[in-house]
Amino acid sequence: MKFCSHCGNHVTRKIPVGDAFIRFVCEQCGMIHYQNPKIVVGCIPEWKNDILLCKRAIEPRLGLWTIPAGFMENHETLEAAAARETFEEAMAVVDITSLFGVFSIPSVSQVYIMFRGTMRTNDYGAGEESLEVGLFPVEAIPWDNLAFHVMHEGLSRYCQDKKDGRFQVHRSMIDR
Amino acid sequence: MKFCSHCGNHVTRKIPVGDAFIRFVCEQCGMIHYQNPKIVVGCIPEWKNDILLCKRAIEPRLGLWTIPAGFMENHETLEAAAARETFEEAMAVVDITSLFGVFSIPSVSQVYIMFRGTMRTNDYGAGEESLEVGLFPVEAIPWDNLAFHVMHEGLSRYCQDKKDGRFQVHRSMIDR
Repeated sequence: MKFCSHCGNHVTRKIPVGDAFIRFVCEQCGMIHYQNPKIVVGCIPEWKNDILLCKRAIEPRLGLWTIPAGFMENHETLEAAAARETFEEAMAVVDITSLFGVFSIPSVSQVYIMFRGTMRTNDYGAGEESLEVGLFPVEAIPWDNLAFHVMHEGLSRYCQDKKDGRFQVHRSMIDR
Repeated sequence: MKFCSHCGNHVTRKIPVGDAFIRFVCEQCGMIHYQNPKIVVGCIPEWKNDILLCKRAIEPRLGLWTIPAGFMENHETLEAAAARETFEEAMAVVDITSLFGVFSIPSVSQVYIMFRGTMRTNDYGAGEESLEVGLFPVEAIPWDNLAFHVMHEGLSRYCQDKKDGRFQVHRSMIDR
């Protein structure tokens, strides 16, 4: 950030009075430009014993596998975002059934929130951001070709829960 | 947003190619300025059978009661944010013990994430953003003077869980 989005003047970096963090501040109009973590919302779409994964058609991690996920938009709920991303990336319609996990990724200032969702039918397909979409039994998850560390962490916990016959709500920090 | 924070030119509102949402876009440098929901992180600090609440010293809802809570900062974890806010607003040191709930507030594009935390000692006090801080048994929660709808929703569910002798992870939409 170089310019004030409110008045167009140059911004400076300083700790505002009464604050504890360095912010971008406009000395001209006084606006403080807070920057905060972004929410990535994902869904583990379930069809019978399988889950639906997408091979990414975009950077970063083009060609690697992920659950349908993306940045939450203003004025939507977490659940709506999870269902929207599933439709956009995997052309599948899900009913969100439960919260699966909240994962903090401080290195990139993201919070990754995963849900489980039940596919209404076994229709699916590759959305614009996917090269390929497929149903996988947990034994066939492509562990060596997952797109992000959080995916490895989330799906490992998913498999463990499935083996235990009991789904928990997970939380952890992903630090790579 | 009126100006591009990257180059200082005026921004326009349009749907970028391949996107489905209206964004602020700079026609000069091409930057797309995404705006996403913010995360508010709160803690229900517990000391024996009581919980710690703060009377707000700042707007909005000055003079009304809340759990310690605030906007998550870049490069921190959810749990660190919850503990930091508890220290800043209530001068209490907590160990975060569990996730209590995730609440979507689409009307203001916020996601409110609440944890339970155990106070290490019964030391507490009013931080800069609090007029007063106090321990309350659940029977004495000031229901008519709570600061936000999400507080009413969260603390109602907390009381119910406590009565049931079993804490769940809650999720719901707050739509007022």
